[in-house]
Amino acid sequence: MEAAMGPRVNEERLWRQIEALALVGGRPDGGVCRLAFSEADKAGRDFVEARMRALGLEVRIDRIGNIAGIRRGSREAPIVLAGSHTDTVATGGRFDGAAGVLAALEAIETMNEAGIRTGSPVGVISFVNEEGARYVPDMMGSLVLRGDLSVETARKSVDAAGVSVGAAIDGTGYAGSDDLSDLDIGCYLELHVEQGPILEREGAAIGVVETVQGIKWLDVQLAGAAAHAGATPMSMRRDAALVAAEIVRHARHLAATIEDQRATVGALTLSPNIVNVVAEEARLTVDLRNPDRERLERAEAEMRAFVAAAAGRERVEARMTMLADVPPVRFGPTLVGVIEESAAALGYRSRRMMSGAGHDAQIMAGRWPAAMIFVPSRNGISHNVSEYTAASELAAGANVLLHAMMRIAG
Amino acid sequence: MEAAMGPRVNEERLWRQIEALALVGGRPDGGVCRLAFSEADKAGRDFVEARMRALGLEVRIDRIGNIAGIRRGSREAPIVLAGSHTDTVATGGRFDGAAGVLAALEAIETMNEAGIRTGSPVGVISFVNEEGARYVPDMMGSLVLRGDLSVETARKSVDAAGVSVGAAIDGTGYAGSDDLSDLDIGCYLELHVEQGPILEREGAAIGVVETVQGIKWLDVQLAGAAAHAGATPMSMRRDAALVAAEIVRHARHLAATIEDQRATVGALTLSPNIVNVVAEEARLTVDLRNPDRERLERAEAEMRAFVAAAAGRERVEARMTMLADVPPVRFGPTLVGVIEESAAALGYRSRRMMSGAGHDAQIMAGRWPAAMIFVPSRNGISHNVSEYTAASELAAGANVLLHAMMRIAG
Repeated sequence: MEAAMGPRVNEERLWRQIEALALVGGRPDGGVCRLAFSEADKAGRDFVEARMRALGLEVRIDRIGNIAGIRRGSREAPIVLAGSHTDTVATGGRFDGAAGVLAALEAIETMNEAGIRTGSPVGVISFVNEEGARYVPDMMGSLVLRGDLSVETARKSVDAAGVSVGAAIDGTGYAGSDDLSDLDIGCYLELHVEQGPILEREGAAIGVVETVQGIKWLDVQLAGAAAHAGATPMSMRRDAALVAAEIVRHARHLAATIEDQRATVGALTLSPNIVNVVAEEARLTVDLRNPDRERLERAEAEMRAFVAAAAGRERVEARMTMLADVPPVRFGPTLVGVIEESAAALGYRSRRMMSGAGHDAQIMAGRWPAAMIFVPSRNGISHNVSEYTAASELAAGANVLLHAMMRIAG
Repeated sequence: MEAAMGPRVNEERLWRQIEALALVGGRPDGGVCRLAFSEADKAGRDFVEARMRALGLEVRIDRIGNIAGIRRGSREAPIVLAGSHTDTVATGGRFDGAAGVLAALEAIETMNEAGIRTGSPVGVISFVNEEGARYVPDMMGSLVLRGDLSVETARKSVDAAGVSVGAAIDGTGYAGSDDLSDLDIGCYLELHVEQGPILEREGAAIGVVETVQGIKWLDVQLAGAAAHAGATPMSMRRDAALVAAEIVRHARHLAATIEDQRATVGALTLSPNIVNVVAEEARLTVDLRNPDRERLERAEAEMRAFVAAAAGRERVEARMTMLADVPPVRFGPTLVGVIEESAAALGYRSRRMMSGAGHDAQIMAGRWPAAMIFVPSRNGISHNVSEYTAASELAAGANVLLHAMMRIAG
């Protein structure tokens, strides 16, 4: 393949933007806290807005706070949109979300500098509340844009302190008066840090995301009987901890026996949680993920059957509640191909992969063509203040984004 | 066997004493809180002291607060001692400990009423801090009496609030000035609630305790790596929760494969304990009990080997600490026989059994002949405000205690 013609992003400038945005809501430990709709999150959005205006984009902000900046093309056509989000978890890093927004802005600035006029318009969008760390649902902004969540419903969501989205938005002046439902979107591209170890381990620069796993979260509550650990014969026990342990092991079993299945018990608590008392209650979560809908359904069914059987053997009562249920997404082959070809033309080693985490791109894919570009996460660490991607790795991803946007926009 | 001659205890009077002592440190939910060396515990000790004096006993209180009341016999001889403790856990019931002290006092009152003069002296003892709920070690009072723990060392033990035993004792006037090390003890008998379900399930009135299980408590700390539950391939995980779960299951396996083995994981916590994060750390306890010392050692060795192997498979680091290590005790066949015969002569159905919990009697057995009488615990519940033994069941146990004391004292 011929080496790609055309411009390259400015690695240093992009890195300075990463550093500058990290100061907004910056934590003393070097991490970032821009929980959705907080003052810090609003300041992050203001940072993005100022940059858009400096780049000469037409800025539009909708009533939930999503911000879009449009750069006209030489013809009237659907917009080639790129973006991500700038909200973070409470102990977040500098790259999750911010990398995608700032890379898209850097791509626009590179076009500006090079005097490139695309055929179709291009644009940058930053979605509100992707993380869901303060307000459910996560990916709120893209759900509103897609039309699956009304602003009115979203405003009613309440955080742990009892503050509604509506009150938070009104308090910080977060909302615009615009409605982005008339935005003529041609496609949506999102650069994001991998949040996993695969690219780093394999020495690949670019992850070409083909699919986003579906997610199911099961909450399992087990009710046995408290009993004296010394005085109660084993045969008379109804031990909630034992059943919980069997579920943890079965999660690993499902991952070993169902193709592409991931299964995790990350949260588990016992009650009364005392050394010499058989556990009366256990509560745990099961996180099931699979890029294939049928296999994910099978994993859920097998887990539910196992929980019932394991609880029955120990005469423990089990209750299961679904906390989240997001179907898998497969990005269209055309856009995936464009990203792969752009990476190859730029000389970057890429690999097709699956996204383990949820992203705005999977919401957008429900209505428009969409795709994602992953860049490496050092040690696979994410949602953590020590999250890190090197400046050169970020620039490589931004170059792929730039070239993919230019190819599509023509 | 001929029906036993002689007196019977007064069931109603014994029950009134149970109710009266339950008001000392009584909780609004009907339970009792007389944590060791608290004001309530001191008031409970005062209740016992007043009763001893009313019964005409010679009262002695040592420097850790153990109280003994002696009733002279017709000859100089070692004392036939009976007792237990009156301290409780924070959410304790009315019977654990109190039953044994009040039954012994009731036995003395019955002898007084019947004008019985025994050959050997008889006595009642109430030990301090059997529970260990506020101060370690548990069974502190009997350890001091046996000579294995000095009063000076015991006084240095500190509770969670930083208050030492010495400060607590001095503050409430708990200590006496006496030294009970010259007490000429012939044997020690202890009535106690079973704290398990066996007597109730089998319809037996009296448990003739032959052995007290040995106890080992292992604290296990596991250090893996936090990772994104969606983005991290199963093969790259170092999941502390999985290893913890395997240990819980192995505890049950040990109980199934080693004779008379009991094994319990009652406490288990994960960190960071979040639904979509692979557990970085897990901490759990393993409670191992066996009436046979060699089998208990084998259980510990097998558990340690399993923890190391399971952690190694998942590349998780494991640290194990021994929190408690009490060897098993076998009571002498003569005293056990006396209790069994007393029960039979009184017409009570008895069964020989093992104590699952620890008791002052097992400490006393290290130096003097000792034995225990168990009475049923409804639903096996113990260390709980709903702990319950019926008045008639308690009286049956007290009658066995009375007759065993009279047989031994002559």
